[in-house]
Amino acid sequence: MATGKINVSVENIFPLIKKFLYSDHEIFLRELISNATDATLKLKHLTAIGEAKVEYGNPIIEVKADKKGKKLHIIDQGIGMTEEEIKKYINEVAFSGAEEFLNKYEDSAKDSGIIGHFGLGFYSAFMVAEKVEIISKSYKDDEAVHWSCDGSPKFTLKKGKKKDRGTEIILHIAEDSTEFLEDSRINELLRKYNKFMPIPIKFGTKTETLPKPDDAKEDDPAPTKEVDNIVNNPDPAWTKQPADLKEEDYKAFYRELYPMQFEEPLFNIHLNVDYPFNLTGILYFPKLTQDLNVQKDRIQLYQNQVFVTDNVEGIVPEFLTMLRGVIDSPDIPLNVSRSYLQADGAVKKISSYITRKVADKLNSLFKNSREDFEAKWNDIKIVIEYGMLSEDKFFDKADKFALYPTVDGNYFTFEELQEKIKANQTDKDDKLVILYASNKEEQHSYIEAAKAKGYEVLLMDSPIIGHLMQKLETSKEKISFARVDADHLDNLIKKEDTQISKLSDEEKETLKKNLEEVIENKSYTIQLEAMDSNASPFIITEPEFMRRMKEMQQTGGGGMFGMGNMPEMYNLIVNTNHELVGEILNTKTAKKRERLINQSIDLARLSKGLLKGEELTNFIKRSYEMVK
Amino acid sequence: MATGKINVSVENIFPLIKKFLYSDHEIFLRELISNATDATLKLKHLTAIGEAKVEYGNPIIEVKADKKGKKLHIIDQGIGMTEEEIKKYINEVAFSGAEEFLNKYEDSAKDSGIIGHFGLGFYSAFMVAEKVEIISKSYKDDEAVHWSCDGSPKFTLKKGKKKDRGTEIILHIAEDSTEFLEDSRINELLRKYNKFMPIPIKFGTKTETLPKPDDAKEDDPAPTKEVDNIVNNPDPAWTKQPADLKEEDYKAFYRELYPMQFEEPLFNIHLNVDYPFNLTGILYFPKLTQDLNVQKDRIQLYQNQVFVTDNVEGIVPEFLTMLRGVIDSPDIPLNVSRSYLQADGAVKKISSYITRKVADKLNSLFKNSREDFEAKWNDIKIVIEYGMLSEDKFFDKADKFALYPTVDGNYFTFEELQEKIKANQTDKDDKLVILYASNKEEQHSYIEAAKAKGYEVLLMDSPIIGHLMQKLETSKEKISFARVDADHLDNLIKKEDTQISKLSDEEKETLKKNLEEVIENKSYTIQLEAMDSNASPFIITEPEFMRRMKEMQQTGGGGMFGMGNMPEMYNLIVNTNHELVGEILNTKTAKKRERLINQSIDLARLSKGLLKGEELTNFIKRSYEMVK
Repeated sequence: MATGKINVSVENIFPLIKKFLYSDHEIFLRELISNATDATLKLKHLTAIGEAKVEYGNPIIEVKADKKGKKLHIIDQGIGMTEEEIKKYINEVAFSGAEEFLNKYEDSAKDSGIIGHFGLGFYSAFMVAEKVEIISKSYKDDEAVHWSCDGSPKFTLKKGKKKDRGTEIILHIAEDSTEFLEDSRINELLRKYNKFMPIPIKFGTKTETLPKPDDAKEDDPAPTKEVDNIVNNPDPAWTKQPADLKEEDYKAFYRELYPMQFEEPLFNIHLNVDYPFNLTGILYFPKLTQDLNVQKDRIQLYQNQVFVTDNVEGIVPEFLTMLRGVIDSPDIPLNVSRSYLQADGAVKKISSYITRKVADKLNSLFKNSREDFEAKWNDIKIVIEYGMLSEDKFFDKADKFALYPTVDGNYFTFEELQEKIKANQTDKDDKLVILYASNKEEQHSYIEAAKAKGYEVLLMDSPIIGHLMQKLETSKEKISFARVDADHLDNLIKKEDTQISKLSDEEKETLKKNLEEVIENKSYTIQLEAMDSNASPFIITEPEFMRRMKEMQQTGGGGMFGMGNMPEMYNLIVNTNHELVGEILNTKTAKKRERLINQSIDLARLSKGLLKGEELTNFIKRSYEMVK
Repeated sequence: MATGKINVSVENIFPLIKKFLYSDHEIFLRELISNATDATLKLKHLTAIGEAKVEYGNPIIEVKADKKGKKLHIIDQGIGMTEEEIKKYINEVAFSGAEEFLNKYEDSAKDSGIIGHFGLGFYSAFMVAEKVEIISKSYKDDEAVHWSCDGSPKFTLKKGKKKDRGTEIILHIAEDSTEFLEDSRINELLRKYNKFMPIPIKFGTKTETLPKPDDAKEDDPAPTKEVDNIVNNPDPAWTKQPADLKEEDYKAFYRELYPMQFEEPLFNIHLNVDYPFNLTGILYFPKLTQDLNVQKDRIQLYQNQVFVTDNVEGIVPEFLTMLRGVIDSPDIPLNVSRSYLQADGAVKKISSYITRKVADKLNSLFKNSREDFEAKWNDIKIVIEYGMLSEDKFFDKADKFALYPTVDGNYFTFEELQEKIKANQTDKDDKLVILYASNKEEQHSYIEAAKAKGYEVLLMDSPIIGHLMQKLETSKEKISFARVDADHLDNLIKKEDTQISKLSDEEKETLKKNLEEVIENKSYTIQLEAMDSNASPFIITEPEFMRRMKEMQQTGGGGMFGMGNMPEMYNLIVNTNHELVGEILNTKTAKKRERLINQSIDLARLSKGLLKGEELTNFIKRSYEMVK
């Protein structure tokens, strides 16, 4: 038996690093600026603990593009590297200096914000550069060192010319990557990845107008000067304490995050936890519009202020992915599959922490400013309703603040609603029947009929509301939802008392036959009811169960299999106590009776939105005749 | 100056390979089966060219899960490895045996289907296994060799016990990856990645029923036997020649690809090109439903029959991503960013090849079976219209076969339409006015009015149709589109002849005043027109330009900025030649006149779908009164 060690030759692995390291070449700039940031933060730490006896000052990181020379420079004023350090950190692929630093300084450095991890980032430079130079001067050395490599993977190392402390990386951009020499592209990358990194990043200069000197004349132009153009905000709101932020600060940060969003957010949730995982961030409830591009501005994930992705699937519970904002956590494993992510213990905790914080915020809004909460309900309900459906823990919390608006614009919690309607809307089997409409316009006449009986009618118009009603019906005791047009009201909420019909059984029989003769091909089920004589003579209803199942299938999932394609089913309710119905029964001429029935049914169909196309055109023509 | 070579130590890189190599751990099985396939195909090639003097036979690859022992075995009957080869291929990370083989055998092996590329796939085993063993027996060696490594990265190598030629990989699955020992998970992976790989893959056995022997009695159960359960189809349709495939074969392959799709595809397009790039595949036009999950079954990208991804963004033109099917090409660079992909020359050629093939297929369908093409139009129009909008080359081709259906179900090409309507629908400025409706039901009365004048009315109901009309109006000469309810027909298609009004100018003035008194707050612009006395007395119209701009903005892009939120604008057209209008003018009682006007306008609004909610309920109540 022989033993040995698996070998990696740099000639084999280097081409793969160039190709495989990151699927997105543009990432190189983020990686190099992360290294520059680490070099600066290390110096900050060493001066703070007194190990480096130099002035920390106000260091910046500079990015310079030399389009003509096809070079891109990244210059920091950080810790710098000695020759020995270059040999150790650069010439050894995947040796992480950041990790070494964090191990060495342990506790004292743990909040230093140092980013590096794998010791691979630097090599991403070779994805876009045919040659890379490093000129570095360590804070502890008088002499600079100059390293260069064409990715072959041979390097040269010599004395360098550099006066200031820090490191300059020079990328000789390859022919196929010249896009990275364009100002616009560099700006785009800086905006995307580095917008909130903790060390100021300079890219070019800008002109600033100065105040006029006191002795200036009226016509004198204001003096100007060229100043550094700093592209990032090193102290973004989420890194601050909630106590130090006002409402305006949160709004200003929202605009900073999403400059193209004109709508203000409805409210925000500041996340801040460091045990058992480290997470900061600010989430915003946006005003959701019907805009199809709504998913363009999404929650952004950062690690130590470095942008990672705006795909937070698996980290944030699905129902909260409609929110906006920032999450910053070094504890979320990257470069792993989504299924792995969802199984990860830390991520599970993060996800449930976020859910809890959102629920708490909503609850405090509800308690502390109910009026405001009601005003915002229409904009936030989809998120809450979806959350109630998909997360049982959220359901339990939201059940206390989820609102049920009526068609008249009153808002009840479920408990308040129960209290309000139980006297009038409990049926003879002791079941509480909650009436609702899905559209105030379309179901107007039905809503009016319900209101005439003193019933409350909810307005339930979210796309997933059918699913939520189903859930409420199964999780609460003895309640059921019914749309106002699901049946005749006396059937929807059955009470002990029965109305007396003006018609005898024989007359009913005749009436039913008359009606069936005229409408036989229209597939309505005729239902004679002794209703109030002031109610409509004819009403078309659509049974709740079938309709809801169909709708639930159409909005995806749930319902009963195959019901999505079932035809609509309607009943024709005939008010046997209405004068017009009596008239129909007493009309002896078949022709005249038919005309009466047809016109009446057309009106009933119109009321239910079923009279369309040619039938509507004919109805209108007939009606113009009648107007004359 | 010193020179040197960048160094990679295996201790540093190995942990990264485990973590970084692929973002999806599940990929390991695909990689190991790809290696087993290559080992088998190499042997096939060597026996074919006579270099290996062994029987190739009918080799399979076997996957075996040992849940108790926490081991997963992948066993092939391929070329095997000698001790020397293991040292070369396994102990050297990223040394690609496949590449070496292809270089050595050059031309003769170029169509062998060998998959390997980077020499990294094997190490993906360490993403899920804490220990990996290889037992291999080369076709040219009598003795097997047994390698094992716990990822430390130390390995041991000894003589192995293996009788048959080939390689067995044994993964000792790590604690956090035991999911990969479950039959269901393994089946899922095999179905996803290996379904069409070229060597049969066995996973378990199944029971097969045999024919009864001749002397069996009626009651005897049919004999059964255990047979290998082969999970893949090594010869998928796209690897065959179109001439060898019948319509049923294409349909059967569609079902194989998308077992959960119950709808048959409308037609298919067989892709087959080997210069200047290599690409095979079959695309299907599916019957697009309103189902929200429509994007679940997408085009799948393969390389040498190995599944890579079902995200073909950047490879297939966007308008064709609604299609389904398979593309297999080794020439598509992977692990690169989408922006890089879109700039890649080969990918650009592939994309335009696919567009051309789709256009050619549609054109031949149109020419060879027009009736069938018309029947399918409604299902394919969105793809074609979207393509016409987004790709000019496609527009030019599609202009010859794109169809414009009328509300009566006739289908015209643009040229045929022009021919058909130019006599009747050219206005006095020599502009051809194409009338259309977006909804046959909602615009019924307007359609009828247009048809009464002998005009053709198209049914244009795709969501992006406004954008396409805009494009047609600018790319064709002297044509314009107008929806039937955009104005009074005599204004939409202005001819020389003018209708004579029954009313004097003074009477018109009075009428207008009367109308304005009643409807002042309803914001209709009143437009008196001398129309046919049989036409409707009142019509509400909605000007084309404003409406189309609004709709275009709402369907994303196009239109004019800010118009999406403009209020709807309507005109009220009053037919001064209609009897009812005369009657209104002659009614002297203000009260009675108001009633006439209100009822008439309600009917006009009803016809345009504008009478809703309380107004409709009141209208219906009034109408019931009139019925009595």
